[in-house]
Amino acid sequence: MVVSVGVIGAGVMGADHVRTLAHRVARAQVVAVADGDAARAERAAAEAAGARVFADPLALIADPSVQAVLVASPDETHADFTLACLAAGKPVLCEKPLAPDAASCRRVIEAELRLGRRLVQVGYMRRFDPAYMAMRARFATGDLGRALLVHCAHRNATAPGFFTGTMAITNAAVHEFDILRWLLGADMTRIEVQRCGGATATGEPDPIMLLLRSDQDQVIDIEVFMNARYGYDVRCEMVCAGGSLALAPPVLLDSRVGGTQAFPFAGDWRPRFADAYRLQAQAWIDAIATGMPPAGASAWDGFIATAIAEHGVRALDGKAAVAIDLPPAPPLYR
Amino acid sequence: MVVSVGVIGAGVMGADHVRTLAHRVARAQVVAVADGDAARAERAAAEAAGARVFADPLALIADPSVQAVLVASPDETHADFTLACLAAGKPVLCEKPLAPDAASCRRVIEAELRLGRRLVQVGYMRRFDPAYMAMRARFATGDLGRALLVHCAHRNATAPGFFTGTMAITNAAVHEFDILRWLLGADMTRIEVQRCGGATATGEPDPIMLLLRSDQDQVIDIEVFMNARYGYDVRCEMVCAGGSLALAPPVLLDSRVGGTQAFPFAGDWRPRFADAYRLQAQAWIDAIATGMPPAGASAWDGFIATAIAEHGVRALDGKAAVAIDLPPAPPLYR
Amino acid sequence: MVVSVGVIGAGVMGADHVRTLAHRVARAQVVAVADGDAARAERAAAEAAGARVFADPLALIADPSVQAVLVASPDETHADFTLACLAAGKPVLCEKPLAPDAASCRRVIEAELRLGRRLVQVGYMRRFDPAYMAMRARFATGDLGRALLVHCAHRNATAPGFFTGTMAITNAAVHEFDILRWLLGADMTRIEVQRCGGATATGEPDPIMLLLRSDQDQVIDIEVFMNARYGYDVRCEMVCAGGSLALAPPVLLDSRVGGTQAFPFAGDWRPRFADAYRLQAQAWIDAIATGMPPAGASAWDGFIATAIAEHGVRALDGKAAVAIDLPPAPPLYR
Amino acid sequence: MVVSVGVIGAGVMGADHVRTLAHRVARAQVVAVADGDAARAERAAAEAAGARVFADPLALIADPSVQAVLVASPDETHADFTLACLAAGKPVLCEKPLAPDAASCRRVIEAELRLGRRLVQVGYMRRFDPAYMAMRARFATGDLGRALLVHCAHRNATAPGFFTGTMAITNAAVHEFDILRWLLGADMTRIEVQRCGGATATGEPDPIMLLLRSDQDQVIDIEVFMNARYGYDVRCEMVCAGGSLALAPPVLLDSRVGGTQAFPFAGDWRPRFADAYRLQAQAWIDAIATGMPPAGASAWDGFIATAIAEHGVRALDGKAAVAIDLPPAPPLYR
Repeated sequence: MVVSVGVIGAGVMGADHVRTLAHRVARAQVVAVADGDAARAERAAAEAAGARVFADPLALIADPSVQAVLVASPDETHADFTLACLAAGKPVLCEKPLAPDAASCRRVIEAELRLGRRLVQVGYMRRFDPAYMAMRARFATGDLGRALLVHCAHRNATAPGFFTGTMAITNAAVHEFDILRWLLGADMTRIEVQRCGGATATGEPDPIMLLLRSDQDQVIDIEVFMNARYGYDVRCEMVCAGGSLALAPPVLLDSRVGGTQAFPFAGDWRPRFADAYRLQAQAWIDAIATGMPPAGASAWDGFIATAIAEHGVRALDGKAAVAIDLPPAPPLYR
Repeated sequence: MVVSVGVIGAGVMGADHVRTLAHRVARAQVVAVADGDAARAERAAAEAAGARVFADPLALIADPSVQAVLVASPDETHADFTLACLAAGKPVLCEKPLAPDAASCRRVIEAELRLGRRLVQVGYMRRFDPAYMAMRARFATGDLGRALLVHCAHRNATAPGFFTGTMAITNAAVHEFDILRWLLGADMTRIEVQRCGGATATGEPDPIMLLLRSDQDQVIDIEVFMNARYGYDVRCEMVCAGGSLALAPPVLLDSRVGGTQAFPFAGDWRPRFADAYRLQAQAWIDAIATGMPPAGASAWDGFIATAIAEHGVRALDGKAAVAIDLPPAPPLYR
Repeated sequence: MVVSVGVIGAGVMGADHVRTLAHRVARAQVVAVADGDAARAERAAAEAAGARVFADPLALIADPSVQAVLVASPDETHADFTLACLAAGKPVLCEKPLAPDAASCRRVIEAELRLGRRLVQVGYMRRFDPAYMAMRARFATGDLGRALLVHCAHRNATAPGFFTGTMAITNAAVHEFDILRWLLGADMTRIEVQRCGGATATGEPDPIMLLLRSDQDQVIDIEVFMNARYGYDVRCEMVCAGGSLALAPPVLLDSRVGGTQAFPFAGDWRPRFADAYRLQAQAWIDAIATGMPPAGASAWDGFIATAIAEHGVRALDGKAAVAIDLPPAPPLYR
Repeated sequence: MVVSVGVIGAGVMGADHVRTLAHRVARAQVVAVADGDAARAERAAAEAAGARVFADPLALIADPSVQAVLVASPDETHADFTLACLAAGKPVLCEKPLAPDAASCRRVIEAELRLGRRLVQVGYMRRFDPAYMAMRARFATGDLGRALLVHCAHRNATAPGFFTGTMAITNAAVHEFDILRWLLGADMTRIEVQRCGGATATGEPDPIMLLLRSDQDQVIDIEVFMNARYGYDVRCEMVCAGGSLALAPPVLLDSRVGGTQAFPFAGDWRPRFADAYRLQAQAWIDAIATGMPPAGASAWDGFIATAIAEHGVRALDGKAAVAIDLPPAPPLYR
């Protein structure tokens, strides 16, 4: 069975998703692309033979040829398009964040709870990254014992011009919030943010250091550095009672040139996580094709990541630690 | 456009190909599986919804529902099934080697030349391995200058029981013969084989060391070790005038446990080259879907690899260097 | 000129110092060893031809054959023996900490200030570790710009039985306090300690995470894990505006055995820092032989490290961040 | 007991040895330096307080203040100065090679045999390199079983202007000849040299590949590349029945700058082997001070390395494999 997908948003991420679904994923077919910018929509649709172009995302969602929807439009539209998919009863893979604010995420959860079944997957693609998956699988064997600390770093070569200081939390660190819960099977109870002397060209604090505590008493530090200059570098080490596990830098070549043995970094997140995006899309399609619930981050996970980020922004602004007290997951999400 | 594939052979490799085509490749559909062992064929076919089972490979090739054929049957049957595909005018991806002997490979080439267009791709999947591709792309930039030496190692944890000494050349080192020609754009002119004190349980020489010379005066050493015990490990370093390029060991996790920082090896070639198999299959499907000639190793490349292996076996037996003098590629293969 | 050294303390560290001075350091001669345990003193002295044994450390200090003194006795005796050396006008290399409490360190500083010249070096040997030296030298080139964050980990395989929770700060993390000041050229202004769920067999918190802030607005995290099990592992990464610098794991062999590529860890700090101890002793002897002031950590540095540790212990006990407000260094120590 | 050393030769190597003995070695004192170039001798002697300068090396050897001699003069003078030391009954550490030709080495051996005790150590310093020592110690545990193959590479960034093609064998690969015998406890029985397309500015073949066979049927390949450009890089991997052991690249810092994670190479052999030179000198001094025979390469080892090199030069010139048939070591050297 082939799954017919409509993609909303034909910017950098949306176009990437179209390419991945059309050329790298089994049993998927991109049948529709929607974007307010018609030329951009045409360019993306040209990657997928036979895909139609829509100006109106809601028309795409409603179209009977579209079985499932991937939402890659601007963040502030995510929740509304996801709600429209729920209303239409269609599976939806929504790019992260599910919404920039927790309240909007709650609206999606309420709609899904009313529906009584899970149709929403949120695009926290790291859950499908082979290295994170290997880390989780190794940890799950239990032979390293309990996790006690986690050290994370999230470094971009250069932040986009529109980046603000809070986006380091709401847009970047949300990935860590989600993956930590998934790795540890824990919830976060406290967040603190430290600024250091660094700042972006526009005066935003950069890097910042986040300190979290989990309900299993794990302590987690996350460096977020939006202008690390040297390359895109995501690191994670779980320190356990019986040993430690860390992501190995993903390298293909050992080049010995000009005085050094050198291993290149990706310029941004897309080459680094290309496989994760592919495997996420494949898992999404597989679940739809087989009638299973989505395998990745749920709407609840999307809500939690955004809610932690909101607490983080308060911690950044208030310069004090903030307790995180979130409700337990409804049964649908357990 | 979806390409309907029939797979001949449902052993370890055939079953893997079915899974890859069915679950990891865009625009492919496995519609038929043939194997003399009906139960094995059923098991493999069960991985691909709607795939029919054939007892007779020739019937599969002839079946009008089958657009393209993947041959993963025993080596000695490769050439005949490939010829049948050519007779039927159907694209074929034939597992390596194209045939165990050069004469059989020549029959395939002659048939393809008569046909006047390329329908055959040989499964030298390393050409699609991201690390080898990165090495070739980096070399192709030219900034390291000429390649002067190449060091290769091909290590298996344990050889299958049926392995003979010559298979270290005809079955294992053929991968190096192909990838070296592809990396260097060179042909081989001489081969020499050194035995050392090691031997398999059945007395076959293991490891052996092959020494080749190319028509660009490159010197190449290849260690083939079928019982290296510690794991599956494929290494390649190109030493160039301005620096060196080597495959980096493909690791996901840095585990610090029990006194060591440890990076695991794959147990055999399948996890190590899973991505290469996937990308090879995808490229094959893409070429068929778009009417392009196959992207990977051609029948000619398959012939050359087998022919070099035959020279290597003579060098192993005769204990002296053997000159390699092969004809130039016909225009169809240039 | 050969420098005649007396060593006080013949325990693990003292005996190591005797061996290093006698067998690995140019222009040094161990002429005396003092320890309350006579057998232990004899054993250590046997490593150095002609060394005499003293029961009374003060007699050793007073002995005219002793030109310079190395203090490796229990921590609580360090300050008194160092003061006796100052009274005798003899150069002294005192094992860290200079004293377990800042007040005792102050007494040493006051005595040295009265003397008007520096005779005291404190054994923060990491300043002589080739990797830390390379890091500092690279940072000093300035081409990476300002340091913004520092991530440290200090892991022991197993803590000695007598280890208490505060010793993770006063005995272990003091190394980081000293090396951070030396790397950054900065002073610390704030310390916070986070416990996590882990604990030693006797219920002491382990690991703990320290968070410091410097007067250059750098943020520093230090994990101290006294029972990390897998080995002795000291890590440090300086995150700078233009790139990052980290200690590379010090390995000699790449062993491929039993399914993994493995790099061994030292069992404890002595093999890891053997070179640092040797170079520290050599630099100490060189300075004495040439009449230069000691090259390593001064009494002031020793005081500061202990004083930060005292603040850290208050932060651990009080569970809140503690401001660090220490006096500026007197001119003798600038 | 302090050993008084005279150093013959104050060029790059001689001056380095003076510095090492004077500043890094316990119980050594450099009392004399001889060089035909008086200014150069003065500069080297200035590193060692109280060292006298000699114009005539034979006068240095004869001087009663000199207990032991280090020979670092031009290669062709090594044997004669070593013979003079033997005649004077003084221990001598002679830089490698013992002599450029095997016949001269034999003269040294004959003199030493007549003397009936070993006074000569040859400066094959790799035997004291911590990484090679770790490799040998690990191999000696026996748990990896027999060694079957060894892969070596010896790369210089740039060859000195006076370098000839045969010097790649007589001056560079001799290090591998010695260390292989020491690692394997084997003797070499056959050597073959392969030229490839590369050449130096003056037309000498570079790199070359040497293929050796041992009397334990091990096969060894050695790449010697005198103008590898990117840096000084010495590699060695022992492939054993139960696993493999390789030198890990000796790095101190992990630098992440400008798109890459980079590990620097030494520019030449001196920083790479600084520790080996120091430990070699220390072991030499220790042996003299304690009346033990020298610990490193003997005159016999020096003869064998040079003799293998002579066979290698014949193999290079004659373009065919050359059998190596050397006499067994006299009892003095077993």
